[in-house]
Amino acid sequence: MIALKAVRGFHLGNERVQVAGLPVKTVRAAATGPERRSDPNGSYPVGQLYVQHFQLHQPQARYPLLFWHGGGLTGACWEDTPDGRPGWHLHFMQRGYDTLVSDAVERGRAGWARYPEINPLEPEHRTVEQAWEQFRFGPEGGYVPGAPQQRGFPGQRFPVGSMEQFARQFVARWTNSTPATLRAYETLVRHAGPCVIIAHSQGGYFALEAARRLPDLVKALILLEPVAAPGPGGALGSRYKAIPHLVIWGDYYSESPIWRQYRAGVQRYLDNMAAEGGCVSTMDLPSMGIHGNSHMLMMDDNSDQLATMVHDWLAEAGCYRQ
Amino acid sequence: MIALKAVRGFHLGNERVQVAGLPVKTVRAAATGPERRSDPNGSYPVGQLYVQHFQLHQPQARYPLLFWHGGGLTGACWEDTPDGRPGWHLHFMQRGYDTLVSDAVERGRAGWARYPEINPLEPEHRTVEQAWEQFRFGPEGGYVPGAPQQRGFPGQRFPVGSMEQFARQFVARWTNSTPATLRAYETLVRHAGPCVIIAHSQGGYFALEAARRLPDLVKALILLEPVAAPGPGGALGSRYKAIPHLVIWGDYYSESPIWRQYRAGVQRYLDNMAAEGGCVSTMDLPSMGIHGNSHMLMMDDNSDQLATMVHDWLAEAGCYRQ
Repeated sequence: MIALKAVRGFHLGNERVQVAGLPVKTVRAAATGPERRSDPNGSYPVGQLYVQHFQLHQPQARYPLLFWHGGGLTGACWEDTPDGRPGWHLHFMQRGYDTLVSDAVERGRAGWARYPEINPLEPEHRTVEQAWEQFRFGPEGGYVPGAPQQRGFPGQRFPVGSMEQFARQFVARWTNSTPATLRAYETLVRHAGPCVIIAHSQGGYFALEAARRLPDLVKALILLEPVAAPGPGGALGSRYKAIPHLVIWGDYYSESPIWRQYRAGVQRYLDNMAAEGGCVSTMDLPSMGIHGNSHMLMMDDNSDQLATMVHDWLAEAGCYRQ
Repeated sequence: MIALKAVRGFHLGNERVQVAGLPVKTVRAAATGPERRSDPNGSYPVGQLYVQHFQLHQPQARYPLLFWHGGGLTGACWEDTPDGRPGWHLHFMQRGYDTLVSDAVERGRAGWARYPEINPLEPEHRTVEQAWEQFRFGPEGGYVPGAPQQRGFPGQRFPVGSMEQFARQFVARWTNSTPATLRAYETLVRHAGPCVIIAHSQGGYFALEAARRLPDLVKALILLEPVAAPGPGGALGSRYKAIPHLVIWGDYYSESPIWRQYRAGVQRYLDNMAAEGGCVSTMDLPSMGIHGNSHMLMMDDNSDQLATMVHDWLAEAGCYRQ
């Protein structure tokens, strides 16, 4: 049983663009209804983020948890797993954490800016096959569209039989939205106040940047397979160095040259941080005897075990009960 | 305090398309990371719907409530109002209703199919100005972009000072997605089982269609300013005739020729239904002495009062306590 004080959903953002000079159209929104005018010229808010805030009646955790999804996904990735088990969001609420689950700029309920008139770039849509390879589920070309059985890497913990269900949560992404996304996440952290961020993949990059910018508010970072790290910046401030970072890596890196590159880049950043006195813990799951995890750690068949490890680490870091 | 058993989020849908023959690109998802291959060819699930299911520990209501948004919006429209008050979703949960809040096909967390390769049609993006007119907030051309004060119709109950915040929840829509949306909503109703649907605007059309198709499962319909009704079909079955319909209309119809057209079409359908023995209640708010409501009834300053009226009607219709 989860005793909620409230659940709220809202958007954060402050930008606006004006569009002019486009032709006015006529559309019929319902087949049985009349036509109406559709004028695309006017003002549009852009760069907003959507967040759903679950406030517990009596939170047990010291700080709320912010859940930041990866590229081409939304906050839905923290809810049910593709094979229908409860996800990390429910897990952490049950442990007594307030949560804020966001859809970043241009994904999900955040909406997306029209292209090419506002955003000149085309979006990228991920195929099931692309996910199969990028998320280290199985060998290149090994996905059979729609088949209920799929042959993932030996010992694969991701529910590969639910690939298509997983792919239903994919959303288009734009590779030029990083600056707007960072602004929106900064606004979110300021809104949340002192908080812990759990971030996956691309979200890990945003979380590292946000912590650099707002070291007084980010009390801990959990980075699930971060895909990139900030570029070389100035020296780390003492407040930043005090933020505990937990980085978790799954399995099958030997199968993925691109992931070895991603990880090497992030590792350089973390090594520099540690050398400067930063606070980095790493869980390389295979070297801890936990084999078979994909890029989608929070959906793998040991997702509850991993969530418990994260919770225990947060408690150790002083981020659970006061 | 709301005692939840669980909150789950997932997608429903069964369709798949294959794309072939498109050029393979190279993208750099993070400025600091390496480039990677982006092959748009392969399989995509399409036509799915996203739903978030809030299960109460001890529901008081006889049936769960399904919340169906209108065109160009998502399930977020039932959460906070643009001026930050709690929305209908929280209101009904607090009264003891289990809820299922969906993002229909091609909106929000449901994702959208690439165009023109899968969906040949361009989407429609709503401007703030278009919403100002279509939602009967104020006189044509009366919206001043970004101004904190806006001059709505006299007595306007929509928080017009929060227009831009409202517009942050707008999402692109496609006017050709009706068949796929109906299929997805049918799947949702079958998933939910016996249920009550609260539907706004375009969602009202879908709800009327769904009730015709699944009269054993839809136990009552609440239609907030439905924008259209099904076309002439066969005679109404006896099971359909037993479903109580509540239709609610706001104010300012005299200011909107297109809304008079929409409403006239729906009214013909409802009149036919009543003539055949169907069960239709209408709340025309101005004629009940409640003036100043816009198209966005659930966001107007009397949204709690209206929700209470809906709840009372549901209790009267036997849909609350058993």
